[in-house]
Amino acid sequence: MAVYTEVTDDEVSAFANLYDIGGVMSFKGIAEGVENSNYLLQTTTAVYILTLYEKRVAPADLPFFLGLMEHLAAKGVPCPTPIQALDGKTLHELSGRPAALISFLPGLSVKRSQPHHAAGVGEALARLHMAGGDFAMVRANNLSVAGWRGLAGATATRADEVRPGLAGEIAAEIAEIAAHWPTALPQGVIHADLFPDNVFFIGERLSGLIDFYFACNDLFAYDIAICLNAWCFERDNSFNATKARQLLSSYQRVRRLEPDELEALPLLARGSALRFLLTRLYDWFNQPAGALVTPKDPIEYLNKLRFHRTVRSPAAYGLAG
Amino acid sequence: MAVYTEVTDDEVSAFANLYDIGGVMSFKGIAEGVENSNYLLQTTTAVYILTLYEKRVAPADLPFFLGLMEHLAAKGVPCPTPIQALDGKTLHELSGRPAALISFLPGLSVKRSQPHHAAGVGEALARLHMAGGDFAMVRANNLSVAGWRGLAGATATRADEVRPGLAGEIAAEIAEIAAHWPTALPQGVIHADLFPDNVFFIGERLSGLIDFYFACNDLFAYDIAICLNAWCFERDNSFNATKARQLLSSYQRVRRLEPDELEALPLLARGSALRFLLTRLYDWFNQPAGALVTPKDPIEYLNKLRFHRTVRSPAAYGLAG
Repeated sequence: MAVYTEVTDDEVSAFANLYDIGGVMSFKGIAEGVENSNYLLQTTTAVYILTLYEKRVAPADLPFFLGLMEHLAAKGVPCPTPIQALDGKTLHELSGRPAALISFLPGLSVKRSQPHHAAGVGEALARLHMAGGDFAMVRANNLSVAGWRGLAGATATRADEVRPGLAGEIAAEIAEIAAHWPTALPQGVIHADLFPDNVFFIGERLSGLIDFYFACNDLFAYDIAICLNAWCFERDNSFNATKARQLLSSYQRVRRLEPDELEALPLLARGSALRFLLTRLYDWFNQPAGALVTPKDPIEYLNKLRFHRTVRSPAAYGLAG
Repeated sequence: MAVYTEVTDDEVSAFANLYDIGGVMSFKGIAEGVENSNYLLQTTTAVYILTLYEKRVAPADLPFFLGLMEHLAAKGVPCPTPIQALDGKTLHELSGRPAALISFLPGLSVKRSQPHHAAGVGEALARLHMAGGDFAMVRANNLSVAGWRGLAGATATRADEVRPGLAGEIAAEIAEIAAHWPTALPQGVIHADLFPDNVFFIGERLSGLIDFYFACNDLFAYDIAICLNAWCFERDNSFNATKARQLLSSYQRVRRLEPDELEALPLLARGSALRFLLTRLYDWFNQPAGALVTPKDPIEYLNKLRFHRTVRSPAAYGLAG
């Protein structure tokens, strides 16, 4: 949870006046999003999310993120749409931070996912990949192989405090994964962080995808690998192949995976697990003073990484063959 | 800000099914209320506040608080109304805590109050006092003189860490205030915590009073004294007599203060300042592990206490005489 910046009633009223959205009726900080401050803004006409971008989001990336949400929403992907102010722009400033007003999406994120949730995610992810095809802007994935090396270097001296031998295991993983990392697979815009927190459902229906602040250009199959890690492990770290099969088969009903993509899944899933292991490890050692966020356990992702290391074929992910 | 208890989507859906409120569309933890966990619950029919009572609120007091809100709302006081479930009750359990669903009040709390805000507060406070007249339940004020002694005892050994001589100054204040504390003034149900955080405005109009979890039976004039402290000091600790006059005169347009009540105001304001000094001091030394709340500065209330100690007549509060 978050809400780092306090906004006064005068400031929010002045901000709302930049838009054609009616008068402010209510404004509440909400416990959503880890990187930014989020508020629920109710006006006389509708409810919106107001996001203040805190320092972990690079201002230079905001036009990509906001432009992508506009693009995807226009294509029918159920994601938040940045609202244009009277000046036609979607990015303004509030309390000294970049700020955007975004459409409100109803729905609840699931704490204990079922196979049908994984199916919904697979389909939505494929639709996102297709809809992003003609998005004109490009953002490199700074949390791919080169980024892992930076995070490994920044955590190497202390990693063994979390688990003896961890620094060495990470170094060996990076070397091996980088040596085999695929480059010729289909790519485009990926979400790159489609965890249960970032997916809303109303009943059994997927109603929204949120938090596009890690979106970038990378391999589509890597985005699938992130979802396998985020949606298909149980709390006891066991892998639920039924959920994986649902996720992959629903994805493929929208966008067929090429044989090379399927073949690469175990390595991509291993790389994805390494990515979250590294960022969690970094956050573990670098908790900002006064942060309201409980750091997440890095070891969960070490366990996932080790699982994928044992996988010899995508059949382990519940596929027919 | 708060939100201590995490509630799963399954739990909130099951809770909503206890009520005739439609299907759950959205559920978000909000940064409101320090003592409890609060969530904004949107259903297919309306928006509600869902409150989980954390351990600082005594479960035995909940029927008083919820009953009072129901009573006041029925009398037209703009305060939240507890919603009755299908079983006719307003109090249930969620995630192992007492929980209530409460009507949503629109409005913003003001960060920099103006004299007209103080006027609105005075009028609303008088209406609250009048409307509580025929409320049948009674709750003693555990933060009056006897309670101060307990807090002073619990903080005496460390108070001087905050300001040298503070423990002695507190002991002398309690002795003197207790010796002169009035007992024969008009009394009834008071809010006892009507700070700017707990009052909503839409434009210049007061739209709501919230957070009745300190409400109790005590002197009406003591509630006014709390508001003088909460609304009439500027950030530099200077006393704004214009706001005080607005507050008192608006109050009196609804309920005339007796001469004895006016006469007692300086002492009551001094006692009220002492009460918040003591609870802030206690919280300063007893921050719960993992709390998301920044403790408030006790010294702000030492300064207010010292101001009221110099006041010889209610004329200092902007009254004509």
